[in-house]
Amino acid sequence: MPKPVMDFWFDFASVYSFLASMRIAPLAEAAGVSVRWRPFLLGPIFAAQGMQDSPFNLFPTKGKHMIRDVQRNADEIGVGFQWPSVFPQSAVLASRVALVGLKEGWGEDFCRAVFHAEYAENRIISEQAVIGDILTKLKVPVDAAFASAQADEIKAVLRENTAEAQKLGFFGAPTFTTADGELFWGNDRLEQALRWAKK
Amino acid sequence: MPKPVMDFWFDFASVYSFLASMRIAPLAEAAGVSVRWRPFLLGPIFAAQGMQDSPFNLFPTKGKHMIRDVQRNADEIGVGFQWPSVFPQSAVLASRVALVGLKEGWGEDFCRAVFHAEYAENRIISEQAVIGDILTKLKVPVDAAFASAQADEIKAVLRENTAEAQKLGFFGAPTFTTADGELFWGNDRLEQALRWAKK
Repeated sequence: MPKPVMDFWFDFASVYSFLASMRIAPLAEAAGVSVRWRPFLLGPIFAAQGMQDSPFNLFPTKGKHMIRDVQRNADEIGVGFQWPSVFPQSAVLASRVALVGLKEGWGEDFCRAVFHAEYAENRIISEQAVIGDILTKLKVPVDAAFASAQADEIKAVLRENTAEAQKLGFFGAPTFTTADGELFWGNDRLEQALRWAKK
Repeated sequence: MPKPVMDFWFDFASVYSFLASMRIAPLAEAAGVSVRWRPFLLGPIFAAQGMQDSPFNLFPTKGKHMIRDVQRNADEIGVGFQWPSVFPQSAVLASRVALVGLKEGWGEDFCRAVFHAEYAENRIISEQAVIGDILTKLKVPVDAAFASAQADEIKAVLRENTAEAQKLGFFGAPTFTTADGELFWGNDRLEQALRWAKK
């Protein structure tokens, strides 16, 4: 019997997507669920809901708590964390490269490395040099990856993911969706989403 | 050695406070943590942050998902749930009566019964008759409880709880605070807050 499938929707700009990216692989393995990593862009979705910035910037009291909450969660899972000097960061470049990698087999490692660079190393992931460093460390040919990331087909997938996320009623990230159309929002719903996917 | 203490801050208008109220007693018992139930009012706190209504009403996409999320969580813990015909409901009367009960020893049962009436039985908890029914079922003298709930001292405690919540930087409910000043927001942080309180 094929494994049940769950989609993991994330935006590199989302700090709770960072936590989920660090946790999902072993949990999905243990649950026997196959996960599809699907980058999308929250910006247009927030804008359609009247927000021109991250809710954590728009509601500073919530934003202040969020940083502490992420720190506690990162400590519990043993992952480094430091609040980046730029937030949110544009995820367009990293998402396109990720889509190339997800086709070619190095995508999940790349995604984890990007999230780690952004939220544990205070690097600016919208910079081509930073993405290039990550690719080099993963032994991925840098120029070829950047060239593929500019292909119309890749750009289209990112647009389509974002449009699908909007159509499905997303309002944040990470979001998990199961084959029967159930939607789970937030890193703290990851285990529950996996239980649902297994049903 | 005295048990560590954790404060459980809730608003009867808050549906995730309902879920936390149904879960907290056995989890705190197992963790060896003593919990103080502290009703407060979210309304003035949301208003100070520019929101004149529940965020779930202000952001309908989020509100729609919230109902489904609460349903799934209620199912997992085996508690009934139906979305009330009025949301949010005024918690002033129920909170004042709860404060009387928390002094007299019947407060936690009363709080659970109020939350259940509101979120599993579609009853309107701002109505004196509904609160009276709950008191009767708990064998609490109704007239005496209502009289005590109107005392200046009780009204002052509710105002002070709300002022303290605002000063501590609350932005939602439930919120858990520990003796060392840590703040945890959300039903999904209950277990983590208890682990922290035990440290």
